[in-house]
Amino acid sequence: MSVREPLLELGKRALNTTSQTAIVGAKLCSIESLDYEIVENDLFKEDWRTRKRVQIFQYVCLKWSLALLVGLLTGLVGFFNNFAVENIAGFKLLLTNDLMLKERYHAAFVAYAGCNLLLATAAAALCAYIAPAAAGSGIPEVKAYLNGVDSHSILAPSTLLVKIFGSIFGVSAGFVLGKEGPMVHTGACIASMLGQGGSRKYHLTWRCLRYFKNDRDRRDLITCGAAAGVAAAFRAPVGGVLFTLEEATSWWRNALLWRTFFTNAVVAVVLRSLIVYCRGGKCGLFGKGGLIMFDLSSTVSTYSTSDLVAVIILGVIGGILGALYNHLVGKILRKYSIINEKGAAFKIMHTMIISLLTSCCSYGIPWLARCTPCPPGLEDRCPTAGRSGNFKNFQCPPGHYNDLASLFLNTNEDAIRNLFTANTGNEFDISTLVLFFIAVYCLGLVTYGIAVPSGLFIPVILAGASFGRLVGTILSPICSLDPALFALFGAASLLGGTMRMTVSVCIILLELTNDLLMLPLVMLVLLISKSVADNFNIGVYDLIIQMKGLPFLVAHAEPYMRHLVAGDVVSGPLITFTGVEKVGNIMQILKTTRHHGFPVINEPPFCEAPELCGLVLRSHLIVLLKGKRFTRDKVLTGVGEVFKKFGSFDFAKAGPGKGMKLEELDISVDEMEMYVDLHPITNKSPYTVVETMSLAKAALLFRELGLRHLCVVPKTPGRPPVIGVLTRHDFMQEHILRLFPHFNRQKKRNEEQT
Amino acid sequence: MSVREPLLELGKRALNTTSQTAIVGAKLCSIESLDYEIVENDLFKEDWRTRKRVQIFQYVCLKWSLALLVGLLTGLVGFFNNFAVENIAGFKLLLTNDLMLKERYHAAFVAYAGCNLLLATAAAALCAYIAPAAAGSGIPEVKAYLNGVDSHSILAPSTLLVKIFGSIFGVSAGFVLGKEGPMVHTGACIASMLGQGGSRKYHLTWRCLRYFKNDRDRRDLITCGAAAGVAAAFRAPVGGVLFTLEEATSWWRNALLWRTFFTNAVVAVVLRSLIVYCRGGKCGLFGKGGLIMFDLSSTVSTYSTSDLVAVIILGVIGGILGALYNHLVGKILRKYSIINEKGAAFKIMHTMIISLLTSCCSYGIPWLARCTPCPPGLEDRCPTAGRSGNFKNFQCPPGHYNDLASLFLNTNEDAIRNLFTANTGNEFDISTLVLFFIAVYCLGLVTYGIAVPSGLFIPVILAGASFGRLVGTILSPICSLDPALFALFGAASLLGGTMRMTVSVCIILLELTNDLLMLPLVMLVLLISKSVADNFNIGVYDLIIQMKGLPFLVAHAEPYMRHLVAGDVVSGPLITFTGVEKVGNIMQILKTTRHHGFPVINEPPFCEAPELCGLVLRSHLIVLLKGKRFTRDKVLTGVGEVFKKFGSFDFAKAGPGKGMKLEELDISVDEMEMYVDLHPITNKSPYTVVETMSLAKAALLFRELGLRHLCVVPKTPGRPPVIGVLTRHDFMQEHILRLFPHFNRQKKRNEEQT
Repeated sequence: MSVREPLLELGKRALNTTSQTAIVGAKLCSIESLDYEIVENDLFKEDWRTRKRVQIFQYVCLKWSLALLVGLLTGLVGFFNNFAVENIAGFKLLLTNDLMLKERYHAAFVAYAGCNLLLATAAAALCAYIAPAAAGSGIPEVKAYLNGVDSHSILAPSTLLVKIFGSIFGVSAGFVLGKEGPMVHTGACIASMLGQGGSRKYHLTWRCLRYFKNDRDRRDLITCGAAAGVAAAFRAPVGGVLFTLEEATSWWRNALLWRTFFTNAVVAVVLRSLIVYCRGGKCGLFGKGGLIMFDLSSTVSTYSTSDLVAVIILGVIGGILGALYNHLVGKILRKYSIINEKGAAFKIMHTMIISLLTSCCSYGIPWLARCTPCPPGLEDRCPTAGRSGNFKNFQCPPGHYNDLASLFLNTNEDAIRNLFTANTGNEFDISTLVLFFIAVYCLGLVTYGIAVPSGLFIPVILAGASFGRLVGTILSPICSLDPALFALFGAASLLGGTMRMTVSVCIILLELTNDLLMLPLVMLVLLISKSVADNFNIGVYDLIIQMKGLPFLVAHAEPYMRHLVAGDVVSGPLITFTGVEKVGNIMQILKTTRHHGFPVINEPPFCEAPELCGLVLRSHLIVLLKGKRFTRDKVLTGVGEVFKKFGSFDFAKAGPGKGMKLEELDISVDEMEMYVDLHPITNKSPYTVVETMSLAKAALLFRELGLRHLCVVPKTPGRPPVIGVLTRHDFMQEHILRLFPHFNRQKKRNEEQT
Repeated sequence: MSVREPLLELGKRALNTTSQTAIVGAKLCSIESLDYEIVENDLFKEDWRTRKRVQIFQYVCLKWSLALLVGLLTGLVGFFNNFAVENIAGFKLLLTNDLMLKERYHAAFVAYAGCNLLLATAAAALCAYIAPAAAGSGIPEVKAYLNGVDSHSILAPSTLLVKIFGSIFGVSAGFVLGKEGPMVHTGACIASMLGQGGSRKYHLTWRCLRYFKNDRDRRDLITCGAAAGVAAAFRAPVGGVLFTLEEATSWWRNALLWRTFFTNAVVAVVLRSLIVYCRGGKCGLFGKGGLIMFDLSSTVSTYSTSDLVAVIILGVIGGILGALYNHLVGKILRKYSIINEKGAAFKIMHTMIISLLTSCCSYGIPWLARCTPCPPGLEDRCPTAGRSGNFKNFQCPPGHYNDLASLFLNTNEDAIRNLFTANTGNEFDISTLVLFFIAVYCLGLVTYGIAVPSGLFIPVILAGASFGRLVGTILSPICSLDPALFALFGAASLLGGTMRMTVSVCIILLELTNDLLMLPLVMLVLLISKSVADNFNIGVYDLIIQMKGLPFLVAHAEPYMRHLVAGDVVSGPLITFTGVEKVGNIMQILKTTRHHGFPVINEPPFCEAPELCGLVLRSHLIVLLKGKRFTRDKVLTGVGEVFKKFGSFDFAKAGPGKGMKLEELDISVDEMEMYVDLHPITNKSPYTVVETMSLAKAALLFRELGLRHLCVVPKTPGRPPVIGVLTRHDFMQEHILRLFPHFNRQKKRNEEQT
């Protein structure tokens, strides 16, 4: 196939094969490629020429204002999320605590499990009925968007709404899931809404906004939004910038670094102001903590060789556990996709079952723990009075605490805080940590994939911290480091093993714990666990992208692509237009194909021999036809004629699903016989490759420049001036291996050899 | 001009116009472009096909081993630098102190100034006679290298040696300059040495090393080296990664992030181990401090609105002062270049004069200060006994201290540490801070550009910190923040104003001071000062690159490039080869031109019509001719014939200045009449643009893919298959504006309008 809309097909095919390859969450029936290339047609040039300095100034101001707005809104949403969760979950936990104190244990369980079930059902109902795209983490979808794949309604306002409230309900329901993935998605949704370039519906069509109506500016804004999401979730502004840089984006430039940094500074200021405002107890049960969520800085920080060895071992085990986690997530998602396909009711029931399971674990397992007498000198803090704290009383007599309840009957964040508490020695028994680690690891696995917005960071940190603290407690006779620091290294090792990020996780952990002195060790742990895990499989986000069948362009060309040339993957009939084309022909082609870009060929008498004029986009053609500046004869009308009817604003790319539809056109039979000059809307500078160009190099060109269409031109004269158009689809491994199956066999043989 | 070696010309031209445009430091008579494109010729493909898995594994291992080695060596050099400076400068200061205590004030001055002069002369002599390229910061050159410009001997071993010792002498000599720029350069030099891909001279030609013989792997390694330099200078491993990402590199990918991070982890471990080793006093006068150089974390950190306003004002003033600094650096460098041109002796004399000036200031100005009684409660620390410390006695009676001497008669690092000392209230008088700020700001300006390795970070931090502390001291009645924190903000604002970096400066300051709670305010200050300063001029490193005439490819295309097409800037006669070319022709062209790449055209009878076969490199041609596999007739010999004589190793690109020379060829008259088949060494997949491609888009392609040659092909058939080759030179503003002067006028008019 050459020019066509392959992504649609790819999405459909992926959907059809669900039973084998599993598709999670939203339906992928409409995936669209994004186009980051600047369409340099005559209209664009005319617009550039006439653009005044004041407009450019307005544009710059607006760009920064939007970045500010994204930061502001994401910060507010992040705070609101935190505030709501702490109040809802706090109320639930206090209620359970109260009933426990009165020794009404059954009532306590009913209250606890009931609240959880209610919240879980609400979250699942929102997801299942209003916005299925809001389920799951959202980071893979945002990552795919920033790679140039726009999947259906992933950034729609309904998704935003469900993501915010679904995440609040889901986290409050006591699931082993986090809010950071959903916050990243939320930030991206907010940015996408602001980046629509105004709205005709709400009469927000300020002249300046129109410059934002393109995929390139939207992408930049969404990058800022994703970074703001991390900043709001972890109160880690610099970590957020690095997260987008390392994990989320596929294209990056320094100007964007600087703007993302600004957005995150705004988030930090918003969060800090609200936290300071809440300090007087004005926000109900909202916690006391400052910008640093799990402060570890007071811990002593000299370490010896035996500590180093312990940390290295921790890294290796963390890497293996992380790779196993990814493997199991994949397996479980495949199973879940079968349930998800059966409809909304099944999704809700599924969520309810997992909720009951979680409640049973959280409430049931603590009964296995012995009551421990409070350590001397901590009488004021033990047993804990309020909803959170290190020493939960549970069923124990006064002056004693249940260490398993301290971990299970708390919000996930409080449990992490407890695991990171230093100078409490062997507060947690080894058996407690073993039980908690196993429970959290397994619950985390079964929870991801239910129809609730669910982040992966917190479950992984929780499992990693309990595992690390376990190792630290076991090794405490021979290691000088506090078990709390081991909890930090454990979290780092499991994060490295699942996410495969290095610098950003390092900075996020630094900002979470404020423990700069441990930086070299955290770096070491991350390096080891990532290296170990990379031997087994790919990172969890990439895995999910693969399973969803999103056509993600990877950074490196596969070796077999060096043995192919661009011409090899071009196939099927090529559809082109002539510079001045009959309206009927255009209508016919637009109706019968789903291609998004068509080469325009100049033909005699307008030139001596057929030559490539450029590339015209489907969306531009529809707008041009709508304008009806047709001529009876095949003549050039020029850009002036088009400008009489249109501004370049009219051709700007609308937000997803908002462009003009082909069905809106109303062309009479008479007009069908007339001609229209395509030159003014033709992008005269499409990127081209010669047919003998190595496919690996063409792929590099395609990805680095963020293209949607790449014209393939013939090497020898005397043939048509363009022989095909490469799109994202043509660079996908499965497409190439279907065309050239022997590479597949070769690849498999290589894999077997290792 | 089309195919040619324009950079050489550009360098020469820049040199000729020195008197007007000023060129600083090294002679630029041989600038060479680097080529990051993979030369996919038959030899390469054959090599890929036969490459075994074990070789790939070796390659990966080696890549990481080299990254480890770079980290190890840079860490060691960084420590050695620190160790040497603290011992030399410490000895000098102790000697001066001793003489002061005996009230032999003149002798003290002679000793102080004499030591300084001696060290300065040694540093200048090294620079002037052995490696002129080692003078200055080195960051601009490394930045240019990573952009694809290899200027003469910038990464040579002699430069490395002079950089290390010159920097030690220069910093010890009490100049207002830093070691971080030189450390970055040192790291890059170490990486460049290790990245030569073995050495025939020293019989280090392990088979695996040959895969490193290309500009691409060298570039990656040098990126690691630059990052390691920052890490070693500031003990800031994450800051180092971000510095290279934000400021140094022009190309980036995630795999590199991960490797750089590893290198910096190694640096951190090396530094920490050595610091721990030195704690027992085993390293002479080497300081006590840990990994964090200026710890501020103990400072109270609540701030109010008035503090916020003060910080914003600080940011604005810092931005203005920073822009002024850049402007003045430019002016002074222009003046200095006249001195530098006169020869080595002048350079040394110049350095000696600046050294005497610095000595006079450091020793003279403290006499202006009143003696202050030691603050109560600090009797054990005041007056300071050793070489460093906050309360220098100088000429004062016992129990008193001279606050100006505490700043002037210390190493720069100790002076910064003193400015960052919290909880000492108004230790420094306002007049002291004013005097010190003015002196340091001016001395910093006149010092940069002398023939000594000199970093810009420390002078800027020093001036910024004194300015910030000044503001903090003035505002202390109304602000609740400690003046030490104001010193931090002052340093951030001036760094933002001169360097124009955001994220990396933020992280470097965080790692220097361990004060995470101030992060939002530091971000704010940086954003404001950068925004303010950007209105006046460009960042100091970009300024120096411009002044040195290095052909740096900027990230954004200039607006006027949208009005030009690729064909517009192609000019002059094009030199091409045919697929099977006469040896004599090749020799003739290689001798008479300096072009580095030649298009190869297939001609009948080997094909029907002339067509572009690919691009062949000068260096490959020389190697091929050296092999003498010539034929009597014009026939294809194929890749097998070439492989009988060569491995692809022989064609790998040697390190700078090491490739085979044309003069080494010895071709007989008889051989001149023979033919050679160029196909095996022709890169069959050169990137091409159509002549009507907009120049802005061609520039984007050229930069993003790191090209050296870009073939321009005709749009209409019936013309030669290639009409020119674009090189870096063709995208330079001055080249384009010389061809199209009206854009220059237009640009000027636009600038006047604003």
